[in-house]
Amino acid sequence: EGQLYLLQQRSGKRTAKAAVKIAVDLVAEGIQDKDHALLLVDALSINQLLHPQIDPKAEKETMIRGLPASPGAACGTIVFNAADAQAKCKDGPVILLREETSPDDITGMHVAKGVVTARGGMTSHAAVVARGMGAPCITGAGDMVIDFDKKTVKFGDKYDLKEGDWISISGDTGEVYKGKVPTIEPSISGDFETVMKWADDKRRLRVQANAETPKDAQTARDFGAEGIGLVRTEHMFFDPKRIVSIRKMIVAETLEEKKNALNELLPYQTGDFEALFKIMDGFPVTIRLLDPPLHEFLPKTDEDMDALAKELNVPVETVKARATALKELNPMLGDRGCRLCISRPEITEMQGKAIFTAAMNCQKAGVKVHPKIMIPLAMSKRELQVLKEILDKEKAELEKANNVQIPYTFGTMIELPRACIVADQLAELADFFSYGTNDLTQTTFGISRDDFTYHDCYKKLGILDSDPFAVLDTEGVGKLIEMSVEKGKKVKKDLMCGICGEHGGEPKSIQYADKIGLDYVSCSPFRIPIARLAAAQAVVKNADAKK
Amino acid sequence: EGQLYLLQQRSGKRTAKAAVKIAVDLVAEGIQDKDHALLLVDALSINQLLHPQIDPKAEKETMIRGLPASPGAACGTIVFNAADAQAKCKDGPVILLREETSPDDITGMHVAKGVVTARGGMTSHAAVVARGMGAPCITGAGDMVIDFDKKTVKFGDKYDLKEGDWISISGDTGEVYKGKVPTIEPSISGDFETVMKWADDKRRLRVQANAETPKDAQTARDFGAEGIGLVRTEHMFFDPKRIVSIRKMIVAETLEEKKNALNELLPYQTGDFEALFKIMDGFPVTIRLLDPPLHEFLPKTDEDMDALAKELNVPVETVKARATALKELNPMLGDRGCRLCISRPEITEMQGKAIFTAAMNCQKAGVKVHPKIMIPLAMSKRELQVLKEILDKEKAELEKANNVQIPYTFGTMIELPRACIVADQLAELADFFSYGTNDLTQTTFGISRDDFTYHDCYKKLGILDSDPFAVLDTEGVGKLIEMSVEKGKKVKKDLMCGICGEHGGEPKSIQYADKIGLDYVSCSPFRIPIARLAAAQAVVKNADAKK
Repeated sequence: EGQLYLLQQRSGKRTAKAAVKIAVDLVAEGIQDKDHALLLVDALSINQLLHPQIDPKAEKETMIRGLPASPGAACGTIVFNAADAQAKCKDGPVILLREETSPDDITGMHVAKGVVTARGGMTSHAAVVARGMGAPCITGAGDMVIDFDKKTVKFGDKYDLKEGDWISISGDTGEVYKGKVPTIEPSISGDFETVMKWADDKRRLRVQANAETPKDAQTARDFGAEGIGLVRTEHMFFDPKRIVSIRKMIVAETLEEKKNALNELLPYQTGDFEALFKIMDGFPVTIRLLDPPLHEFLPKTDEDMDALAKELNVPVETVKARATALKELNPMLGDRGCRLCISRPEITEMQGKAIFTAAMNCQKAGVKVHPKIMIPLAMSKRELQVLKEILDKEKAELEKANNVQIPYTFGTMIELPRACIVADQLAELADFFSYGTNDLTQTTFGISRDDFTYHDCYKKLGILDSDPFAVLDTEGVGKLIEMSVEKGKKVKKDLMCGICGEHGGEPKSIQYADKIGLDYVSCSPFRIPIARLAAAQAVVKNADAKK
Repeated sequence: EGQLYLLQQRSGKRTAKAAVKIAVDLVAEGIQDKDHALLLVDALSINQLLHPQIDPKAEKETMIRGLPASPGAACGTIVFNAADAQAKCKDGPVILLREETSPDDITGMHVAKGVVTARGGMTSHAAVVARGMGAPCITGAGDMVIDFDKKTVKFGDKYDLKEGDWISISGDTGEVYKGKVPTIEPSISGDFETVMKWADDKRRLRVQANAETPKDAQTARDFGAEGIGLVRTEHMFFDPKRIVSIRKMIVAETLEEKKNALNELLPYQTGDFEALFKIMDGFPVTIRLLDPPLHEFLPKTDEDMDALAKELNVPVETVKARATALKELNPMLGDRGCRLCISRPEITEMQGKAIFTAAMNCQKAGVKVHPKIMIPLAMSKRELQVLKEILDKEKAELEKANNVQIPYTFGTMIELPRACIVADQLAELADFFSYGTNDLTQTTFGISRDDFTYHDCYKKLGILDSDPFAVLDTEGVGKLIEMSVEKGKKVKKDLMCGICGEHGGEPKSIQYADKIGLDYVSCSPFRIPIARLAAAQAVVKNADAKK
């Protein structure tokens, strides 16, 4: 008699934990098949299951709000610099507050439970590093005004705090709370495991990690990474013990001096790679040769330049002259990537030697090593040729001296439009293409990520649907990727193609990667479970779309 | 009995004048057809026929040597800054010596017979501006050491000179000579005219000019330009009377203040365009909306900032804060081009009003006007849409108020890889594509022209055959152009496509432009005859290649 009308329908808001449970229950009750049950869990939301959370039931007082730059929650006492962070962390958890962070702050970020910066966006140094480490981070907190001399901080007009005071932060909401707010530890329940198992059965894309440190590599393995898709070797140079050597190399006049400085780095690099190979036993480790412009390694202040000059025993004018010579008007389009490896072949020699020595040592120790060497910022086949010759020579020398065979795969980043256009030529030498979608987006759009000030205006006018640095632009950048994959695979059928830019951990971009037939994605360790789930959802969604 | 053996063959070295005569003679004698006679004249060499030359028979003493940045020869007395150049040029010819030049030096460059800079390359500010003006210029003369306070200069170790001393320069060889060396005026002989007539009959590409000043526009017409392919409107803002207004606009806080400042520019811009329309009577004038990042217009030194603050009656902190806010890490990939025109629509309104008012006034005066408005740095159709709406509104208001019809054509620069990829969408709104091959080369390669320090290394290793900023990279950049022309013409059959970058005046690039079916090239006025000849040679060569 009566009829049921559905007048309105809303997607139920639920936590990741609840979503996972609903998915498992619906399958158990035979209401939903596994494939579509996977779609019930928002891939990004499972971040909640991997990090501590602010207890939703706790009382709390929000002091200020910034950008939710890296998920998770933490409480700790305030510190204002890396040295203090290292000193005070022994007494209890600390939260590092900075205007913005630079590589000099890394040691402080490693020991802090969380980071808040007054400036910077979702892709600032602090945000990227914190996400990589899985630590909560808030950036762009403009209402935080620090007095570094007095070691005090104002949060808005109302709150005056000082070093040692307790605060709590949520990197999921961008809120800074007063005092200690209770947090809930992540609980990876049986249901979550079940869903991830379904995801792994379903997905076609391999999921690898962007990682340099043994800690990150181990986290990645624990989260199910099938190897490392990107080792940014330059991150290994910022350690205080090592940066002196790289600076020495930069300031050196003669080739011999340069080689001596690089030789100091060789044992460190070799050790780095050995550690990664061991953790990734049986899985590939993809090592990118030195990428950033050299001026990034030089000190910026007069004081630091003086110190470096003394340390290197050269006049400070020499240091300054080198810094000036290395200055660039548009560093993103400058002397970096393989340009650096080619014009300073001694760097490539050192890195090659380190990789092959590490591989050889690990092999002897029974580790299954699969080193992949990746050339950054290539634009022509000849560049690959020049560098492959250098690497092959280093390998041959080691093999001969030690009477062994060292395996390795040679490939290239694809991060320039020209590389996409000549992809068929590159594939003659490269066995894999790794799309550096951050750079490829920058050059395809002609937009510097750091200078993207008109972003809001463009969004408001409907010129951009979403930030192309967050979600891959399938209409522009994607077309270049599709074209180059096709060209590459025509030359080499089993060419491995994947994404190792930030997009590699973003669900919509992962769906696109699956759709156009890429082989893998690589992302920061804490994104690995998200990428695994998103890769499975991609298969289901793309199959549904074809129906 | 005897047999003649040709043991060796060399192409005879000859001057442009001789080559032209030989070509005409061979045709007259029936030995060569006109088409292939055209190929006997090196297109670049006819530069010699358009500029004064150092008399080859004169005795001369070379003091130093730099880069031959702009052809021609000149003698004059030394001056060291723009103000002195303007003061002394009344007494006789002057040569301007600078470390390097900036827009502030323009007034001095206009009155000087030639320019020598200690720094900079073939595409530095001095080089580009001098080539545009047809004045000889030497850049990168590192052995020139100027003392600006004492107004003296050292050329190497041997020569100490001071303000007022005579020197002679050759922009063809890069040499600076001691004292007055006799020069020969260009003689455009009857043979040269004959050859150019053949070229015009043969060529398919239209040849237009890049010009902003009435003087350049007139030179271009005299050299046979069929319209202006690129008016860089920003060049019109550097005049001392105008730069104050643009700076006012930049520093202004409220929209009203901004509009007031722009209103001061409106009569100047209107007058500029009227002058160009009149000179180009019957031919198109292609006007590019404001392109460079705004910080280029701000003063750089503390002193100049103080002066500006006083002039604008604002605290100097306001000026400095604005300068800091506008600073960019990678200005080439920054807030410029249509991004500027969109985020600051008041600029577009002013420029649109100036163009349409000028067109209307000229039309009333019986001038045949063909204004073309060109959007710089577009990457999406929506950008064109937003700007076209602003322009159409300005036009409609003027038309209504004056009861007239104002004609105009709307088009876009293509200078980003993404623009090439979505060219079909752009062609829905644009009636012409003008390839900004300088920028397109920068983004396709990911190479900043200003930071191309590894160029020699790349050339030596055979990675680059030639400088892609001088000769168009047909394998990479060219493929993007071809793809976008095809996409564009599929949507709009009569879409006009041309090159307005530096490549538009380079013979090899012109041959390529002809081959892929572009409609026109646009280059600096003194390149027009070269482009006309090269365009004819292109037809002959491309036809021969097909045989």
